[in-house]
Amino acid sequence: MRIGIDLGGTNIAGGLIDESGKLLYKHSVRTDTSRGANGICSDIVALIEKIRQENGNCEILSIGVGVPGQVDCDTQLVVYCNNIPLQNTDLKSIIEEKTGIPAFIGNDADAAALGEVKAGAAQSFKDVVMITLGTGIGCGLIFGGRAFPGCNGASGEIGHISLIPDGIECNCGRRGCFELYASATALKRQTREAMEKNPESKLWEIAKSLDNVSGKTAFDAMRAGDAAGSEVVRQYIEYLAIGLTDIVNLLQPEAIIIGGGISKEGETLLAPVRDFIARNRYSRGDIQTQVLKAALGNDAGIIGAAFFGV
Amino acid sequence: MRIGIDLGGTNIAGGLIDESGKLLYKHSVRTDTSRGANGICSDIVALIEKIRQENGNCEILSIGVGVPGQVDCDTQLVVYCNNIPLQNTDLKSIIEEKTGIPAFIGNDADAAALGEVKAGAAQSFKDVVMITLGTGIGCGLIFGGRAFPGCNGASGEIGHISLIPDGIECNCGRRGCFELYASATALKRQTREAMEKNPESKLWEIAKSLDNVSGKTAFDAMRAGDAAGSEVVRQYIEYLAIGLTDIVNLLQPEAIIIGGGISKEGETLLAPVRDFIARNRYSRGDIQTQVLKAALGNDAGIIGAAFFGV
Repeated sequence: MRIGIDLGGTNIAGGLIDESGKLLYKHSVRTDTSRGANGICSDIVALIEKIRQENGNCEILSIGVGVPGQVDCDTQLVVYCNNIPLQNTDLKSIIEEKTGIPAFIGNDADAAALGEVKAGAAQSFKDVVMITLGTGIGCGLIFGGRAFPGCNGASGEIGHISLIPDGIECNCGRRGCFELYASATALKRQTREAMEKNPESKLWEIAKSLDNVSGKTAFDAMRAGDAAGSEVVRQYIEYLAIGLTDIVNLLQPEAIIIGGGISKEGETLLAPVRDFIARNRYSRGDIQTQVLKAALGNDAGIIGAAFFGV
Repeated sequence: MRIGIDLGGTNIAGGLIDESGKLLYKHSVRTDTSRGANGICSDIVALIEKIRQENGNCEILSIGVGVPGQVDCDTQLVVYCNNIPLQNTDLKSIIEEKTGIPAFIGNDADAAALGEVKAGAAQSFKDVVMITLGTGIGCGLIFGGRAFPGCNGASGEIGHISLIPDGIECNCGRRGCFELYASATALKRQTREAMEKNPESKLWEIAKSLDNVSGKTAFDAMRAGDAAGSEVVRQYIEYLAIGLTDIVNLLQPEAIIIGGGISKEGETLLAPVRDFIARNRYSRGDIQTQVLKAALGNDAGIIGAAFFGV
């Protein structure tokens, strides 16, 4: 048995996972950033203890924690953690001292990708890129069946590859980053822009107001035969597919796994993405990158974290 | 000892390499595509035999061949070979039958990258992206010290990631591909365009005519204080650095190795590229991707091919 922890800005989710990647027990607590680094570390350790106690104090081979940030691969120190005050914290040593169990710290997107490889949509693959379409675009890389954190734990920032060099300004300092066009946040912005340009569009009936737009609004309008909604979806899918074709041409992974809220559209999203890639990729022959929907939802990060260091 | 073969459109170059990656003997013959697949295979086998004979028939542990195309990782069949009629040829079996030595076939850009890792600029690294700025942009990926061919032997087509989605039309079918802006061919086109717009520029003194433009023309004009030449170089470096920043943000390799004719500019090229990446990358902390000039020139492909399958 292993324990996986997914540290998020809202919740700390933990679970007990068997060697096949099955999630046997799950529990989560609120992330209280006001408690500072020490408090958060204590909450993580308390969650680990609770998981053990609720499961008959079974033997735990290792504990893994996925954090929303950059972890130094050698020292395992948290270099940077988005919205959580864990910078320069030695979470690994703290957990190991308190529990006596080997601990491994890594990036949460890498954990999600590893989860999908161990027990989800990518179970038959060893070279996988997982993309999560959410507030930004998360990305975890799995090469040879293991997470690939890069030289500094900061790999997978596909959200910040350049889609349009003179495009929209990004918080990261670049312009035209991929996530400004292909994240859920981007789709919502594109939907609102279409509403403002098209006062007669069914987008208004569906969303009621600009404040109420979701990542589903444009898809729903398209299904209702609305031209403006269809155009938003067409353009969004093209932006997404340009970035994914870049991944295919560069890496030719066995699979690209798409997760996050927008992935719930399933084939409505994936079929045209696959078509675009097939028309634009450089590779020849029958063996090609498969584009698949993620299978594990939020559990992927807990399951994958449990296999850090394995 | 191992033998490495670099199959090019003009020459077939082969060499004897020791376990440390040292090139002990080198010989090449013309590539005669008119002889068809069988003829080229015979020429490769004859070159291997010559290398052995000239070196006292020493024991050879393995033979590797880098081809300018796509090789199926499992079957080792040549799926596609640029300008050389080797499609669907089982070069591995032919070499093994004729020589009795294990043979491995791979992509020539992967071979060059592996050569730089074994014996060149990337000797201390195991996760490396090598970029060759030539007619197009070649790219070999090394992860964990081994070539990463992707699921179908077609990885590393960084020349065909999208730089400008509505940009110049590419032979590959996409628009605005990276190599249309950052290859040596692109730099020459950009230089000719600047000459046509700037009849007073020193670019004319240096190149004499549009037909005589090289990848060095704009750099020479910049060194002579020419404004048009400087602008060509500035814009070229920006295009190149945008693509390399994408690689850094996505993969965070330990090193990016730059080869090909343009890399002869050395720090004139690399210093501003490093500056751009440092200003635009997403990663934090002291550990960052190093950008280095390739060390082995054309020998990289011979040396690296010798280590295919090792």
